[in-house]
Amino acid sequence: MTAESERRTEIMDAVERLLARGGVNAVTMRAVAAEADVSLRLVQYYGSTKDQLLGATLDRLADKSVERWQARTRRQRECASPRDIVESFFDEALPTDRESRGFHRVGVSLEGLAITDPDVAGRAYQKHLKELADHLTGLLQSDDRSAPAARLLAWEVMGLAHGLGTLLMTGQLSEPEARTLITNYLERLGPQLCL
Amino acid sequence: MTAESERRTEIMDAVERLLARGGVNAVTMRAVAAEADVSLRLVQYYGSTKDQLLGATLDRLADKSVERWQARTRRQRECASPRDIVESFFDEALPTDRESRGFHRVGVSLEGLAITDPDVAGRAYQKHLKELADHLTGLLQSDDRSAPAARLLAWEVMGLAHGLGTLLMTGQLSEPEARTLITNYLERLGPQLCL
Repeated sequence: MTAESERRTEIMDAVERLLARGGVNAVTMRAVAAEADVSLRLVQYYGSTKDQLLGATLDRLADKSVERWQARTRRQRECASPRDIVESFFDEALPTDRESRGFHRVGVSLEGLAITDPDVAGRAYQKHLKELADHLTGLLQSDDRSAPAARLLAWEVMGLAHGLGTLLMTGQLSEPEARTLITNYLERLGPQLCL
Repeated sequence: MTAESERRTEIMDAVERLLARGGVNAVTMRAVAAEADVSLRLVQYYGSTKDQLLGATLDRLADKSVERWQARTRRQRECASPRDIVESFFDEALPTDRESRGFHRVGVSLEGLAITDPDVAGRAYQKHLKELADHLTGLLQSDDRSAPAARLLAWEVMGLAHGLGTLLMTGQLSEPEARTLITNYLERLGPQLCL
């Protein structure tokens, strides 16, 4: 890693920590400089506006999240039934530890941007959702499940995972309750997932 | 309606319009005064802080939303099977017209507050979710479905509706696709909803 890319990584790490703690409002060029312990000029050099910085950081976060989940499904490959795939998607998506809670907080902040004032960060969020849906659709497609049917199922799973994340984060639902709920859901989905 | 409560209603209407257009960030005491065409002092008289104003407006919005949905289920009472109840919940929750899109935008903004910096508005959002879950749980409870089972199902439906709302609002999913998805989901739920 060159000194430049190392510096860039440090700055994006700082943006990520600010986002995870306080959402989009906590990210200002000055706060990033303080958090990364570098000068304001340097932050401006790597991302000339807050939107660009947010967009780049989200792209990296989204890649990390998809990669983490792909690594998990690769490990399970030999026994990866559609049910395993969907189950591991929920495992990965639910905000049950510090990292995934931070990621959910970031997601909601960016969702807020995406649906009120679509800009760089908003578009990055939409790109992230699309990539996730494409990937999940590919995994769920089979001889017996057409691409459109697989896509509808992928959206359903993504939608439910997102909504449950919110119920968990706002303290409506406990983690054990979420697990029971998902087991019930998967059982109902069972006959379809055997295809 | 007294002049005072009329004035109060006008101010909350203004907060609601600002929220629906630009999310929480668009709501400042000054912006509310301009939108309601009243003085800043008057806005401060009705809600001394932005948080109090937001909290009060959300409480009213949440009441309106629950009432709208209850009115719908009351109209259907004679034939309201659990399936009808769940279906009408989705109909009411999905952001498919201007009013419901505005409401979803407000919800996401407040969710962002609730999970980053819980305050008056955050607590109002949590109270809203809890009231919705209580009401739906009550409707889904039956001789054959215990309260805990009804609550898990209520959360699942709420979670899915919320997540689908996000996919709709961010342009991932079209309204006809969302309808097909919900039909598939309800069919799978069918045997359980007959209880």
